[in-house]
Amino acid sequence: MVQQAKTAITPTRNEDYPAWYQQVVKAADMAENSEVRGCMVIKPWGYSIWENIQRELDDKFKETGHVNAYFPLFIPKSFFEKEAKHVEGFAKECAVVTHSRLEDDGKGGLKPAGKLTEELIVRPTSETIIGASFSKWVNSYRDLPLLINQWANVVRWELRTRLFLRTTEFLWQEGHTVHATRQEAIDETMMILKLYADFAREYLAMPVIEGEKTESERFPGAESTFTFEAMMQDKKALQAGTSHFLGQKFAKASEIKFQNAEGFEEYAWTTSWGVTTRLIGALVMTHSDDNGLILPPRITPTHIVIVPIYRNEEEQKLVMDFVSDLIEQIKPLRYHDKKIQFKVDDRDLRGGEKLWEWIKKGVPIRLEIGPRDVQNASVFLGRRDKAPKDKTGLKTAEFVEKVTSILDEIQNNLYKRALKFQKENTKKINDKDEFYKFFTPRNAENPEIHGGFALSHWCGDPVCEETLKNDLKVTIRCIPLNAEKETGKCICCGKNSPRRVIYAKSY
Amino acid sequence: MVQQAKTAITPTRNEDYPAWYQQVVKAADMAENSEVRGCMVIKPWGYSIWENIQRELDDKFKETGHVNAYFPLFIPKSFFEKEAKHVEGFAKECAVVTHSRLEDDGKGGLKPAGKLTEELIVRPTSETIIGASFSKWVNSYRDLPLLINQWANVVRWELRTRLFLRTTEFLWQEGHTVHATRQEAIDETMMILKLYADFAREYLAMPVIEGEKTESERFPGAESTFTFEAMMQDKKALQAGTSHFLGQKFAKASEIKFQNAEGFEEYAWTTSWGVTTRLIGALVMTHSDDNGLILPPRITPTHIVIVPIYRNEEEQKLVMDFVSDLIEQIKPLRYHDKKIQFKVDDRDLRGGEKLWEWIKKGVPIRLEIGPRDVQNASVFLGRRDKAPKDKTGLKTAEFVEKVTSILDEIQNNLYKRALKFQKENTKKINDKDEFYKFFTPRNAENPEIHGGFALSHWCGDPVCEETLKNDLKVTIRCIPLNAEKETGKCICCGKNSPRRVIYAKSY
Repeated sequence: MVQQAKTAITPTRNEDYPAWYQQVVKAADMAENSEVRGCMVIKPWGYSIWENIQRELDDKFKETGHVNAYFPLFIPKSFFEKEAKHVEGFAKECAVVTHSRLEDDGKGGLKPAGKLTEELIVRPTSETIIGASFSKWVNSYRDLPLLINQWANVVRWELRTRLFLRTTEFLWQEGHTVHATRQEAIDETMMILKLYADFAREYLAMPVIEGEKTESERFPGAESTFTFEAMMQDKKALQAGTSHFLGQKFAKASEIKFQNAEGFEEYAWTTSWGVTTRLIGALVMTHSDDNGLILPPRITPTHIVIVPIYRNEEEQKLVMDFVSDLIEQIKPLRYHDKKIQFKVDDRDLRGGEKLWEWIKKGVPIRLEIGPRDVQNASVFLGRRDKAPKDKTGLKTAEFVEKVTSILDEIQNNLYKRALKFQKENTKKINDKDEFYKFFTPRNAENPEIHGGFALSHWCGDPVCEETLKNDLKVTIRCIPLNAEKETGKCICCGKNSPRRVIYAKSY
Repeated sequence: MVQQAKTAITPTRNEDYPAWYQQVVKAADMAENSEVRGCMVIKPWGYSIWENIQRELDDKFKETGHVNAYFPLFIPKSFFEKEAKHVEGFAKECAVVTHSRLEDDGKGGLKPAGKLTEELIVRPTSETIIGASFSKWVNSYRDLPLLINQWANVVRWELRTRLFLRTTEFLWQEGHTVHATRQEAIDETMMILKLYADFAREYLAMPVIEGEKTESERFPGAESTFTFEAMMQDKKALQAGTSHFLGQKFAKASEIKFQNAEGFEEYAWTTSWGVTTRLIGALVMTHSDDNGLILPPRITPTHIVIVPIYRNEEEQKLVMDFVSDLIEQIKPLRYHDKKIQFKVDDRDLRGGEKLWEWIKKGVPIRLEIGPRDVQNASVFLGRRDKAPKDKTGLKTAEFVEKVTSILDEIQNNLYKRALKFQKENTKKINDKDEFYKFFTPRNAENPEIHGGFALSHWCGDPVCEETLKNDLKVTIRCIPLNAEKETGKCICCGKNSPRRVIYAKSY
């Protein structure tokens, strides 16, 4: 029998990828299912990652001229019905408020009472309710562009939910902007797409591919939807966020009109765009290994955990004095213009137990410090981008000097590793049989393992999309923006095609 | 006829206080009513004040060991029913979700479908849903204290709403903590009360009085509720926030138990505490004058607005170069360890129009800079704590040197002015007739104008509270924590009383 390497997470990615994901989230203490169907509880460790995502994106939105505001949670049913495709897209999965109080049901319980004259929908997205305000705020071309963002919770009644990836309630930001011209609205849509993709690459260390969605995957009511897609370690695609050019459709539905410089009234052009707590799920599935979560230094709540090791009070004093001294040296340092966050784990637990907990939580740098390290003025350093046992001693002065570059090295390693994985599992495929084989599960026990992303031709016909979806559960993730112009034959029907698109299984 | 001084806000405080309030909020462009009953839209200027409140409080919560998390928006009806007083307190005003989708009603519209087996309540507060998680998280005394905060939206179905002060949906933070002993939970309750009150005084420049609520004003289900109360300019009290000692009631309702150090199982002790977007309403009503909003420097989104004045391109270049130079000097400055926020208002509008807009928005410092100022290397400075026309010329170098102390001076002036007002309108009253006269409106046209806060004796009987409430619409705002021990006679019934309490009309 071959000796199995022990891993902190059971099952491993290879054994059962979906179960591995749940276990990583659990072991890192990030989130849990609540007793409300489909709603999750985001626990402090998971929430602090969201806070960092929020802070970084919020800064970027503000730098690009956006301001935050807050609009009602509830949308009157009639607002919702104003844009036909929009309501069609969301009506099947929305929470409906019908009553405004509870009253005694005469059987010792409570029943709904105070029936509303018009039902309220808990926002699944806010185009229609924000549109009602915008129609009042926008009167003249001087009021444009109007660049608003909202941080909020939204509800979509999902039947099959998974922590972070798909939940009935989730947290997000939704940008909503109004412009005087079609071109300005398109420019905004694309600027935000780039902002998102850069954020994913630079902060989440997540390689992403920007592109346009096909009509079948478009936001309900949008004129065009742009996406950035990432490859998870099971080679499935994950839509990490979207930016929509809404044309004049929502402006017409909400009567957002303005007087142009020539004094004529026109409908405005709008955009909307959002990323959600799903990014945390993407982060987990991009980097984590069979020992748990791995957090990129630019988004982690804690950069360094210090685990003091001692056997008695004398050693404790020695070690803790040394740790205090080290902290004083770390405190003034900045990593990408932010304070370096550290934790000293002085709990009354075995050192190994504590170290494994921080490995599972994904902290980039672990420092073990015992009496011998104090004597040598050194620290024993473990990095989350390396194997748990791959540790090195380092003089304290050297560590302090190098810590920001070590963090950058980890950040870059994670990105490079993920990019390598994405490239290794992306293939140009021109042959239909090969395409079908590419997406066929490799073995019955592990149906998740298949080829990855196929770069293949598409004629533009939704029927071909539908065929591949039915046959293989494969969809067009996007028409990449950076694709070379290249004619070819549709992978499904063989008709002429103007460009390759990305086909993949997806979350 | 006496010449009336022109004010930017009509009506003035003296003419019609509630209408003045609405006009100040409107003129500052802070918020507006939405088309959803009782729900407001918080516009960018109002929301940026909330963001500052959030940031400062969040830092303070974290400094005192709390971490953020996020719990579901929806509460199953059965959870809600677990604590009898709690459900009684909130059942009369809650949004009830009964369906999970909309479907074609056959008449061209949509009707609710997908009836839920158990109704969901949109959280009016989260003790019960958070309790369900805590009961899983807390097992041993080692898990305690558990110190959690949540930033969220909540819904209470209010019939009469007013922007910021009372809305169906509002934003807040709710702290929820679990402790091993009664004393620790009480200490937490009081620590947070002090944190809130210090924040109100230091940041909002709002004098507040800390005290305990009587039973009739207690949070539904709490063992004791502590409050901090502020006096508005119409001499009414406003409850600015509350901190609740919940005893073991909610722990018993949610089964939050732990094994103590001796190995025995015990129910835990919990607290909860919150402040809401109502603080913005309190801020408006504490400081604003008949020219609009006045923002304390420590909470304002913008400290300085610079209005360049020029008549032609040549002057424009001269002035704007000077302004750029000034900005470079302001940028490195810190005010209470934060960047000084400034805006250059270079819109194509008359200077006077722009200046009045910033007065109405409450910005602490206005700088007018024209060609003559450039020649003199000076700025023309207006302060929001002074009359609009009370402006002074100041050498630029002197302004840069003094700007942080000017901001502090404004902050202190606002606090002192509000404290003086509170003290002038607070009176020890021992005589029942005098008490009744104190709270009787001074004239029929302006029923808002009455005495203020009465420090009078109370025997402890809820019947006396009820009588005064019915007769005068006056309630006991709190039993002040800092009250001297003093026996006396109940202002209502004349029986013995152990201490004075604060009686007032209130929001």
